[in-house]
Amino acid sequence: MHVVKVPLEDRSYPVLIGTDALARLGTLCSRHKLNRRCAIISDSNVARLYGKRTKQLLSSAGFDPIMVTVRAGEKSKSLDSVRGCYDELAAHRLERKSFIVALGGGVVGDLAGFVAATYLRGIPFVQVPTSLMAQVDSSVGGKVGVNLKAGKNLAGSFYQPRFVLCDLETLETLPEREFRSGLAEVIKYGIIYDAALFKRLERDLEKLIQRDPQTLSPVIARCCAIKAEIVGQDETEGGLRAILNFGHTIGHAIEAITGYGKFLHGEAISIGQVAAARLSERLRGLPKHDVGRIECLFARAGLPIHLRLNEAQRQRLLDAMMLDKKVSGGDIKFVLAGRIGQASHGHKVPTALLRRELAHLAERTSV
Amino acid sequence: MHVVKVPLEDRSYPVLIGTDALARLGTLCSRHKLNRRCAIISDSNVARLYGKRTKQLLSSAGFDPIMVTVRAGEKSKSLDSVRGCYDELAAHRLERKSFIVALGGGVVGDLAGFVAATYLRGIPFVQVPTSLMAQVDSSVGGKVGVNLKAGKNLAGSFYQPRFVLCDLETLETLPEREFRSGLAEVIKYGIIYDAALFKRLERDLEKLIQRDPQTLSPVIARCCAIKAEIVGQDETEGGLRAILNFGHTIGHAIEAITGYGKFLHGEAISIGQVAAARLSERLRGLPKHDVGRIECLFARAGLPIHLRLNEAQRQRLLDAMMLDKKVSGGDIKFVLAGRIGQASHGHKVPTALLRRELAHLAERTSV
Repeated sequence: MHVVKVPLEDRSYPVLIGTDALARLGTLCSRHKLNRRCAIISDSNVARLYGKRTKQLLSSAGFDPIMVTVRAGEKSKSLDSVRGCYDELAAHRLERKSFIVALGGGVVGDLAGFVAATYLRGIPFVQVPTSLMAQVDSSVGGKVGVNLKAGKNLAGSFYQPRFVLCDLETLETLPEREFRSGLAEVIKYGIIYDAALFKRLERDLEKLIQRDPQTLSPVIARCCAIKAEIVGQDETEGGLRAILNFGHTIGHAIEAITGYGKFLHGEAISIGQVAAARLSERLRGLPKHDVGRIECLFARAGLPIHLRLNEAQRQRLLDAMMLDKKVSGGDIKFVLAGRIGQASHGHKVPTALLRRELAHLAERTSV
Repeated sequence: MHVVKVPLEDRSYPVLIGTDALARLGTLCSRHKLNRRCAIISDSNVARLYGKRTKQLLSSAGFDPIMVTVRAGEKSKSLDSVRGCYDELAAHRLERKSFIVALGGGVVGDLAGFVAATYLRGIPFVQVPTSLMAQVDSSVGGKVGVNLKAGKNLAGSFYQPRFVLCDLETLETLPEREFRSGLAEVIKYGIIYDAALFKRLERDLEKLIQRDPQTLSPVIARCCAIKAEIVGQDETEGGLRAILNFGHTIGHAIEAITGYGKFLHGEAISIGQVAAARLSERLRGLPKHDVGRIECLFARAGLPIHLRLNEAQRQRLLDAMMLDKKVSGGDIKFVLAGRIGQASHGHKVPTALLRRELAHLAERTSV
């Protein structure tokens, strides 16, 4: 079992990663002195696979869980789902000292975390991420929230869980496309922070795609450690934390204009990261060779790296980017990489260059 | 101009109280280094009276405000209004460094504060309370949120404003009933924390009701100072802060079962405080004479102190109380006063006694 600590003073917490980690849920909840009454928030897919077991694990450890299930998919990351969850919690009389277990992928974690952050002005919660995306990214660091019509993650909070429990076995039931989508975040950590990880991914990608636990476990732990290190220095994204958004400005805009759900998040940010790599080449001197390596790794992971857009769609994409949370004073700020393993944030990209890059989204340059 | 500081380390902020305080809004926003772009969130009544002036004050100080108006009344303290505000902010491209000015009474402050706490995971906000209730209570201390079908304030956050600006002149346009409702919170501070304030209220009540600025100003400042002192010691209501809820457990339940809006908040907690005083007599030895003084002061303020309920309504009231945020382990915890000026929290009240007290809500004992 790998244990990574997210260092946030009195809100510090561990991320535990291992095979059959789920079995330890009850013990961990007891050790964290959580109260009896709780709600498992999950989605229709994950609840079917792991809902009953999770409920039994909690019950047999002396907890009293109810099950709240939302429909699987990005559309559930909405204010309507938040309202639905509130109503269920209130109907079952969950109190201030009750807690929430977020059992599922990124959508469930973000939604359940936001519900926990705001129900009765905040109750404790626990993350049990069951997708690769959620294990390496969304469950760690306390960003919770939902989408608005106007854009992704526009409503939310910073609210930290009591602990995060990543069970590698839950990845076995993950659909292929979802798993590959998670790899987009894994690759991101290599690009922005860790050249050695990037090389390891180039070397071990096939074993990762086969979901070999021996290969997966240290990679997931390394991703969580990088995230913990960054979040520990900048919890509310005053600066450094922004580098985690490499590829996300364009990625989020792609999700917004195509209607959430057409592209998975990892697919959208795969396209976004390749575009950001090209912008990095122009503006930060990222070697052309490394742009090629980045494109190649995403392509090998089976992720999209291009997107055909007509003029009107490009304009909508630009408009959507203007709503990004990183916009400041009307300027879109980009995360760019000077080289693989080293990204920095706050780079203004001239609109003309951005338009040209969007026009080139349809072309693969290499691979 | 009275200035009271709310001491919360890096989240400390001043509450400014005075005549024509509004005129200083622009200067204060500049001094607090707020960015250009902002939204004034107000309701239809207050916007009509002070919206234009507030907008002009901000514009002439170099800010760029938009106006977001919700319908006046408790019904606007809802998730639907939150969504409406989000959509307006997004449509006008408000960014992470933009800020919100909450211009109005408690409903507007709680709603706008929750929107500020959660839009883009939190943007700065400023409270400009225009009702007595909001000036002495809801604008200070960072409790923000909305009502759910199941109960009052069930969704929300702790989120502190950058400053609070109380303009006494805005009280002149306050409807009589609203003003008297605010007095219920003023009297509460006397009961729970300050016997001298209680005596002063007994002495000066008529002048307060006439809204004499000389009398009002120090009383409002004292209420804010008490709240600041309590919140400074216990921001998120781990303990002490709970005493501010004297009379609120029954009060909130009355609001819930009568449908928000029939009783104003101050009216409901007036009934609730008189009931809590009687429970205090039984369980904490509050002298019968002081129960009489409490009833008398609320009655003199023109506030309701009794409520006729049939058996079914009493049961609904009890059920609604069980949803109170202060419920823990299925027990309703009450704030009770041992004497005027000294309350403590966490008192379990036997259900039988509570039922009996609710049955007596319809009777005035003295006055």
